[in-house]
Amino acid sequence: MEDASLYSTLGDYIVVQALENGVTIIGLTRGKDTRFHHTEKLDKGEIYIAQFTEVTSAMKVRGNARIYTKFGCIISGNVEEIE
Amino acid sequence: MEDASLYSTLGDYIVVQALENGVTIIGLTRGKDTRFHHTEKLDKGEIYIAQFTEVTSAMKVRGNARIYTKFGCIISGNVEEIE
Amino acid sequence: MEDASLYSTLGDYIVVQALENGVTIIGLTRGKDTRFHHTEKLDKGEIYIAQFTEVTSAMKVRGNARIYTKFGCIISGNVEEIE
Amino acid sequence: MEDASLYSTLGDYIVVQALENGVTIIGLTRGKDTRFHHTEKLDKGEIYIAQFTEVTSAMKVRGNARIYTKFGCIISGNVEEIE
Amino acid sequence: MEDASLYSTLGDYIVVQALENGVTIIGLTRGKDTRFHHTEKLDKGEIYIAQFTEVTSAMKVRGNARIYTKFGCIISGNVEEIE
Amino acid sequence: MEDASLYSTLGDYIVVQALENGVTIIGLTRGKDTRFHHTEKLDKGEIYIAQFTEVTSAMKVRGNARIYTKFGCIISGNVEEIE
Amino acid sequence: MEDASLYSTLGDYIVVQALENGVTIIGLTRGKDTRFHHTEKLDKGEIYIAQFTEVTSAMKVRGNARIYTKFGCIISGNVEEIE
Amino acid sequence: MEDASLYSTLGDYIVVQALENGVTIIGLTRGKDTRFHHTEKLDKGEIYIAQFTEVTSAMKVRGNARIYTKFGCIISGNVEEIE
Amino acid sequence: MEDASLYSTLGDYIVVQALENGVTIIGLTRGKDTRFHHTEKLDKGEIYIAQFTEVTSAMKVRGNARIYTKFGCIISGNVEEIE
Amino acid sequence: MEDASLYSTLGDYIVVQALENGVTIIGLTRGKDTRFHHTEKLDKGEIYIAQFTEVTSAMKVRGNARIYTKFGCIISGNVEEIE
Amino acid sequence: MEDASLYSTLGDYIVVQALENGVTIIGLTRGKDTRFHHTEKLDKGEIYIAQFTEVTSAMKVRGNARIYTKFGCIISGNVEEIE
Amino acid sequence: MEDASLYSTLGDYIVVQALENGVTIIGLTRGKDTRFHHTEKLDKGEIYIAQFTEVTSAMKVRGNARIYTKFGCIISGNVEEIE
Repeated sequence: MEDASLYSTLGDYIVVQALENGVTIIGLTRGKDTRFHHTEKLDKGEIYIAQFTEVTSAMKVRGNARIYTKFGCIISGNVEEIE
Repeated sequence: MEDASLYSTLGDYIVVQALENGVTIIGLTRGKDTRFHHTEKLDKGEIYIAQFTEVTSAMKVRGNARIYTKFGCIISGNVEEIE
Repeated sequence: MEDASLYSTLGDYIVVQALENGVTIIGLTRGKDTRFHHTEKLDKGEIYIAQFTEVTSAMKVRGNARIYTKFGCIISGNVEEIE
Repeated sequence: MEDASLYSTLGDYIVVQALENGVTIIGLTRGKDTRFHHTEKLDKGEIYIAQFTEVTSAMKVRGNARIYTKFGCIISGNVEEIE
Repeated sequence: MEDASLYSTLGDYIVVQALENGVTIIGLTRGKDTRFHHTEKLDKGEIYIAQFTEVTSAMKVRGNARIYTKFGCIISGNVEEIE
Repeated sequence: MEDASLYSTLGDYIVVQALENGVTIIGLTRGKDTRFHHTEKLDKGEIYIAQFTEVTSAMKVRGNARIYTKFGCIISGNVEEIE
Repeated sequence: MEDASLYSTLGDYIVVQALENGVTIIGLTRGKDTRFHHTEKLDKGEIYIAQFTEVTSAMKVRGNARIYTKFGCIISGNVEEIE
Repeated sequence: MEDASLYSTLGDYIVVQALENGVTIIGLTRGKDTRFHHTEKLDKGEIYIAQFTEVTSAMKVRGNARIYTKFGCIISGNVEEIE
Repeated sequence: MEDASLYSTLGDYIVVQALENGVTIIGLTRGKDTRFHHTEKLDKGEIYIAQFTEVTSAMKVRGNARIYTKFGCIISGNVEEIE
Repeated sequence: MEDASLYSTLGDYIVVQALENGVTIIGLTRGKDTRFHHTEKLDKGEIYIAQFTEVTSAMKVRGNARIYTKFGCIISGNVEEIE
Repeated sequence: MEDASLYSTLGDYIVVQALENGVTIIGLTRGKDTRFHHTEKLDKGEIYIAQFTEVTSAMKVRGNARIYTKFGCIISGNVEEIE
Repeated sequence: MEDASLYSTLGDYIVVQALENGVTIIGLTRGKDTRFHHTEKLDKGEIYIAQFTEVTSAMKVRGNARIYTKFGCIISGNVEEIE
């Protein structure tokens, strides 16, 4: 997985804006094993800006937050089921 | 499949917003065998952000969710047949 | 066909949204032999997201589904002949 | 023709939507000999998505179908002569 | 002419829609000799999709057809002289 | 001139639509000598699609035709002098 | 992680405008360990402009600030929960 | 000047439409000596399409013609002095 | 960090316009240690134009100034807290 | 200066349209010495199309002409001083 | 810092238009030491056009001038403090 | 500074249109020493078109002229101070 670092400073990034205490952002590992490798806790009002890296190819967000992605702003935590 | 990692930090990503508990995202392997290699369970309101990687070339989503892709937002779980 | 994997994490993807149980997505092999190498069954409401890969250069969809491609959303299963 | 595979996962693709049973898609070989190397039969409502590959540089479609290309949607099977 | 195949899967393509039986598409060879190397006959309603390749750098169309190119749709067979 | 073939499948192309019998397209050679190396005769209604190649860097058209280029459609054969 | 520096002068940057004293920007390390490696304190009115680098792949902001990113201007510190 | 041929099939082209007999297009050589290396005579109505090449880096047009370039259509032969 | 210089003449730049005497621009080092390596003092009306370099990956501005970035013009020094 | 020829067939070009007899276009040499290496004389109505090359990095135009550049059409010869 | 010269002829440039005598443009060195390496004095009405280079990564302007950058035209010398 | 010539035929260019006799364009050297290496004198109405090169990274213009750059047309020689 060594080559994966070559372009990693140019990687895409997302932004998480915590709307309550205890928002959790979990980084999951790239490659054969998809396991948790980092957990970041945010308090209300904190901002987290994260690139995909040679180690992280997926992220999971728990708690009420705004997540800014290339698809726009997506809300986590308070959503309604579509019937 | 070693070379596949060179550009992998620049790969495309999708976002899944779970609209009920138990939404499942399954990663399927790239290459000769297309088999399940990772299953992620989301509770209602959780967000999952995932790149295609040197190991994952397909994903399957089960349960009521919004899936943000380059084609827009697509709903899983509650759909109507077109007659 | 080894080189084909170099850019494969950057490959194009499509999305299939099953509108009935039993929608079938068949991956056909790249290269001299164009044969079935993977068959994925979707139940109603499931979503399947798939890249072209170093092994798959064609896909076939059976059953009522929406298929999101760079040409827009195309319906499989229920179509009318043009006279 | 070995080098032709290097970028093949990034190749362009077309989509065929069969409007009647028995639509035929024929792949013709790249290079010195332009001969049939694969024939795919579609039933009404089936969708076929195919890249150009290191082996296929031309395709022929017979029967009533919609063919989605970068020039838009083109109908096969039922057309009128222009006088 | 070996190198010509490196990018050939990424080559441009055109589409021919036959409007009568017997439309003929002739591939002419790249390089020092420009000679016919392949002739494809189309019946009315058939569609032919062809890339430029390491062997084909010119094509000739005879008979009433629509030819889709990057310059738009051009009609062969029935045209009026401009005086 | 061997290297010239590397990108030649990606070269630009033009389209000639013959508006009378006997339209002539002449390919002229790339490099130190600019001489005729191929002459193609078109009958009325025939279409000719040609790339620039490692051998052809100029083309000459005689007779009444429409020539589609990146500058638009240009008429050969019947033109008026500008005074 | 040596290769990561090759394109690092071309990396993306963000801007933080502190709206109160004591705004904190924390750089988190790229790679296997995601740990704090730099903490920058800003007084009210100070501006901080930072690239992602071969060492920093994530940043965290605490306190009332405007954070300019490719998703627009995002406020940290004073936000309301979405119910 | 050997390397100059590598990208030459991708070079820019211009189009000359002769509006009278005897329009002359002169190719001038690239490099240390800028001398005439080819002269092409066009009769009224003929079209000439020419790339810049590894040998030609300048062209001169004499006589009444339309010259299509990336700056639009420019008339040779009949022009008025600007006072 | 030697490779970082390869593309550095192509790096992004910002512009600072000092609106009072004593505006300070501090360059912070790229890489493992993020420390001050250069401090530039501007008098009122002076303009400072600076690229990110192989040594500088972050900048800090103190005092009343306009800072022109790809996000637009941002004011330092005189800002209001958002409540 | 040998490498300068590699991309020279892709170089930018300008067009000069002479509006009087005796318009002069002078090519100046690239590199340490900036000296005249070619002088082209145009009669009224003649067109000159010239690339920058591995030898020419500057051009000078004397006499009444239209010069088409990426900044639009600029007149030489008859201009008014701005006071 | 040798590699920095490879792309330097393609580097970005700015333009300074002096609005009074004695406008000063100072080039500051790239790399570990950020020191003055060149000072250019402009009289009123003179224009200075300068690229970033393998040696210059920052510039400072003193005196009344218009500075044209990718952010538009910025005035040096006469500015008002923002309160 | 040898590598700087590789892309130099693709370099950016500016255009100077002299509005009076004696307009002076001075080329300044790239690299450690920024000194005059070429001075070009223009008479009223003459046009000068110049690329940045492996030797020239800055230019200075004296006298009444229009200077066409990527920021538009900028006047030298007759300007008003901004108070």
